[in-house]
Amino acid sequence: MRKGEATRLRILDEAARQAALRGLADVSLADVADAIGLSKSGLFKHFDSKEAMQMAILEQVMDRYIAFVWAPAEPRPPGRPRLEKVFERWLDWAETEWPASGCPIIALTVELDDQPGPLRDYFQDRLWRSRALMIAEIQALHSPPMPLADAQAAYFQMRSFVLGHSEARRMMGDTDARRSAFAAFNALIERTVAQAA
Amino acid sequence: MRKGEATRLRILDEAARQAALRGLADVSLADVADAIGLSKSGLFKHFDSKEAMQMAILEQVMDRYIAFVWAPAEPRPPGRPRLEKVFERWLDWAETEWPASGCPIIALTVELDDQPGPLRDYFQDRLWRSRALMIAEIQALHSPPMPLADAQAAYFQMRSFVLGHSEARRMMGDTDARRSAFAAFNALIERTVAQAA
Repeated sequence: MRKGEATRLRILDEAARQAALRGLADVSLADVADAIGLSKSGLFKHFDSKEAMQMAILEQVMDRYIAFVWAPAEPRPPGRPRLEKVFERWLDWAETEWPASGCPIIALTVELDDQPGPLRDYFQDRLWRSRALMIAEIQALHSPPMPLADAQAAYFQMRSFVLGHSEARRMMGDTDARRSAFAAFNALIERTVAQAA
Repeated sequence: MRKGEATRLRILDEAARQAALRGLADVSLADVADAIGLSKSGLFKHFDSKEAMQMAILEQVMDRYIAFVWAPAEPRPPGRPRLEKVFERWLDWAETEWPASGCPIIALTVELDDQPGPLRDYFQDRLWRSRALMIAEIQALHSPPMPLADAQAAYFQMRSFVLGHSEARRMMGDTDARRSAFAAFNALIERTVAQAA
């Protein structure tokens, strides 16, 4: 990796951390530069504007999210073994990868869902694409692949359990949240497999 | 209602609206006073400090939430008829009661879950109490009331579907979100009733 590229990634990691804590609108170029020991003009060599950095933060968060959730799951056989790993990593993403702020996707959703514009459009497009990846994985629970509508219904529930886990664990302080989420997920997979059979 | 009390409620409705859009930390006493045609000193007759107003906003949001979700459900017989109404109102809360911002409870969760202190403690306590109300209602799906652990497991899923609906509807723009949420909820109730029998 070239030095310039490595610096850009360090900027984006710090900027994403700040965005998850205080929102994309409140990321400060000066604070990001300070935190990683760059001058503000050094930082501007990498991003023309705050808007360009905000877009790059979204891209970085979604790239990290996909890599974090999928990379450890991909070596597993398709179907249930892979899906179990995906679900586990999905819970880890909020619980251990972003311990200070919680899941940045939930935070960005609260911030952007009422803000029409290119940031929301880009984020929405990435979310639909990650949803499509997951639905294809759910279809692979059965061979031949199960009907799309059934996989979509299972996806809605699986994603809901991830959101329920995050609220219960982080806001309610519910130490049982992970167990509840896995119990709900396992029962869902069993129902989905039985229905496809 | 005395005039002072009515003014206090108008202040809190406007402050809650701002908090749902931009966060509790960014509610501005000056903007709230402006929006309802009060002077800042007039507003300070009702709240000693910004902190006191933030606490009152949380109280107001939770009071409105409980009334919005439960008042139309309470006249119904306990069990499934009442629970269906609760779930319907739960979806409406994010979709129609807070059309500009979405559910303030989700927004406040993102803001407060990493901010230890009296605001988080109060909010957490109110969320646990509303959870207990809902779990008692789920137990009433069966007579005698079903075991607590089963009702807790059903609660986790029911709450998750509400969060999944909010993300799908507001952020993804998924016009199928409400149908997906009701389908998941109805199947959950059928499983829960069958398990209790």
